[in-house]
Amino acid sequence: MAMHPVPLDRASRLLNHGPTVLVGSRHGDRANVMAAAWAMTLDFEPPKVSVVIDKATLTRTLVEASGVLSLCVPCAAQAGLVRAVGNESGRDHPDKLDRCQVAWEPGPLTGCPLVQGAIAWMECRVLPATAHVAGPHDLILAEVVSAWADDRVFFNGRWHFETAPPDLRSLHHVAGGHFYAIGEPLPPPETR
Amino acid sequence: MAMHPVPLDRASRLLNHGPTVLVGSRHGDRANVMAAAWAMTLDFEPPKVSVVIDKATLTRTLVEASGVLSLCVPCAAQAGLVRAVGNESGRDHPDKLDRCQVAWEPGPLTGCPLVQGAIAWMECRVLPATAHVAGPHDLILAEVVSAWADDRVFFNGRWHFETAPPDLRSLHHVAGGHFYAIGEPLPPPETR
Repeated sequence: MAMHPVPLDRASRLLNHGPTVLVGSRHGDRANVMAAAWAMTLDFEPPKVSVVIDKATLTRTLVEASGVLSLCVPCAAQAGLVRAVGNESGRDHPDKLDRCQVAWEPGPLTGCPLVQGAIAWMECRVLPATAHVAGPHDLILAEVVSAWADDRVFFNGRWHFETAPPDLRSLHHVAGGHFYAIGEPLPPPETR
Repeated sequence: MAMHPVPLDRASRLLNHGPTVLVGSRHGDRANVMAAAWAMTLDFEPPKVSVVIDKATLTRTLVEASGVLSLCVPCAAQAGLVRAVGNESGRDHPDKLDRCQVAWEPGPLTGCPLVQGAIAWMECRVLPATAHVAGPHDLILAEVVSAWADDRVFFNGRWHFETAPPDLRSLHHVAGGHFYAIGEPLPPPETR
């Protein structure tokens, strides 16, 4: 178990580089996980995020009912799982998480799924301004209330993929289930 | 000149993989370019985007005055330029674009800067729902009204970085001016 807490004032950095995420949701005894390429950081501290969640999804229904969600950052080793939960709807398959072989644990603050094997987890609470943008734009705004990351790839307050196995790199969706892994670091800025 | 028009029904794909962007703005004879890591696609067709633009920036003032903006996707060869326009404010330096050696042309529909050397350009019009989220969350929602990309890296309707020079890869901000380049494609999904 390599997941370690990320201080909330560093949690905004988990999405800075634009990874595809898994959105976890739960209301009562119903839980779901979907894939989303359209997610980004919204603020530093308290950390906030935004994610597009279509009205047709079970995830949207569960998030609106509960007011909470989780975001997990999957890694290259999980590309098959990301495609599976992105292609199948929890509406059509109440046993979607079993069918897609998603191993998860409930987040301590929200009960939302934290997917095993992901390299970062965040639990989030929906923000009031969501009421204005969820209708016209399917946009959910949320505050991050807890965060963890795999300390093989996130340490000293930021991602360090280059020193870890390639399977732990984040995924970046292009189109139609095609992904790039995050690549190599550019030379750092000159110190002045 | 390798920039070719991108059909609007494919423009959402320009940001799917989470690159850092340059935000261009113009009002009257004042133009500016800033860097932003927090930008994402919001919808397919018509294509829409969202980007976080702090109230303290000149960019925000110009975008609010004009109702338009541009988003450019810079490449690895431009890391120095991205850091420069990210570190310096157009408020402090009216000649920021010259100081940062930003070569640009005005977009045909908006007049906003399209930065030479970037691998994609979008011109955008601010959407009405922005009124609800710009205040509390600095979030600007916009419709993409024109788009271009460098056909060495974007063709057949999506990015193909792996067949082009590494300098043309998109940049993904981690923290403090540290960037990763986008990496290698994962094996494609199995055809069924």
